[in-house]
Amino acid sequence: MRSDNLNDIKVLAFDVFGTVVDWHGSLVNEIERLKLDVDSSEFVQAWRAGYAPAMQRVRSGELEWTLLDDLHRMILDEILFQFGVTNLNQSQKQHLNNAWHRLDPWPDSVEGLQRLKSKYLICTLSNGNIGLLTNMAKAAGLPWDCILSAEVFRKYKPDPGTYLGVARVFDLVPEAVMLVAAHQKDLAAARDCGLNTAYIERPLEFGATRVKDVSPNPENTLHAKNIVELAVLLEC
Amino acid sequence: MRSDNLNDIKVLAFDVFGTVVDWHGSLVNEIERLKLDVDSSEFVQAWRAGYAPAMQRVRSGELEWTLLDDLHRMILDEILFQFGVTNLNQSQKQHLNNAWHRLDPWPDSVEGLQRLKSKYLICTLSNGNIGLLTNMAKAAGLPWDCILSAEVFRKYKPDPGTYLGVARVFDLVPEAVMLVAAHQKDLAAARDCGLNTAYIERPLEFGATRVKDVSPNPENTLHAKNIVELAVLLEC
Repeated sequence: MRSDNLNDIKVLAFDVFGTVVDWHGSLVNEIERLKLDVDSSEFVQAWRAGYAPAMQRVRSGELEWTLLDDLHRMILDEILFQFGVTNLNQSQKQHLNNAWHRLDPWPDSVEGLQRLKSKYLICTLSNGNIGLLTNMAKAAGLPWDCILSAEVFRKYKPDPGTYLGVARVFDLVPEAVMLVAAHQKDLAAARDCGLNTAYIERPLEFGATRVKDVSPNPENTLHAKNIVELAVLLEC
Repeated sequence: MRSDNLNDIKVLAFDVFGTVVDWHGSLVNEIERLKLDVDSSEFVQAWRAGYAPAMQRVRSGELEWTLLDDLHRMILDEILFQFGVTNLNQSQKQHLNNAWHRLDPWPDSVEGLQRLKSKYLICTLSNGNIGLLTNMAKAAGLPWDCILSAEVFRKYKPDPGTYLGVARVFDLVPEAVMLVAAHQKDLAAARDCGLNTAYIERPLEFGATRVKDVSPNPENTLHAKNIVELAVLLEC
């Protein structure tokens, strides 16, 4: 599973939603706290499902550059309508949209990142905007050395400019960067750019009713159950 | 000295070179370690003096967008020639250029930032590139919540887009951001954009032979001897 060049890796760049934080569980809690008359898991999955098409509208040029906070809000307005929710005022909608800034880490994330940070430069590489990721890090205690975002590169993953952008920011060859993610497509796009890749199993990313296939893909450099196990594999 | 809206400040954005780290003292040490046959303080001051004109060439459009690491290297090559230094190879020059990534914090910086971080979101707003600032933070233990740089905005301070960019990243009004700097011009430009400002005295920024005037300017929201004193003024 180990490539010969594992010793040359300097930077670990993390996907965030699903990989480091539990968006499904956290948002379900927020919806239940609001006592909305919806199936909270279905509502949250619909919100997340709007994410890829919304970013695609930006990538295609149909929408000009738009931050994820604003895309989340556009999708929220649509699904509130679809689910027939009419009793939230503007300030409540804004608060709900900012729930993405308050997502809880998976139980292993903080310890794993702390250990990895002792040996590697650890950063985000997320489609979340900088403000969202910074507020989340502060609330959840995620000890990033640096927050990199689609916002820095003005391109959304899986655009190669994002993966290669990390290498360029740190003046490194692509192989010196490892993308860490719970999503095979993200990792495949990074690998196409020459990055090393580590898959993290997050079988409950979409909740307990829709358990995710977490089979290994031998093309990844590493495969770990969680971020603490990644730290063990990387001898941190 | 306190404005009525001090309670509304959410983000402290820090100038870095001179304000948080001692570029003069740190670079003098690097030069002396290399045993270059130059007056180390004069050499270092010439390097720093090339900074404003180099950035002006970017701002004017004469140079396309160029990261500070690359501007530092252009200036270094010029001053090595001017000072008659001919005995450094490419790798030594690169190592010397990266001395800007290894600058030491002033003695109060880490404690002051740790205290401020308990109450505020603390970020950089520096003309240094993201890689430089991240490497420096990791080496010096600077506990930033987020690293913002001219590189994010593709504009160098004092362009208004940098100061207003901080407010935009965090979805705040400009008054909710306070720029912290040891340079009155930087603070004046931030104030023109509506930010609050805090001046930090760094009389030895240019070394003991060229002590800097650190007189208060009543237009700043706060004036502090150092970052720990700023934390005291802000009740952290």
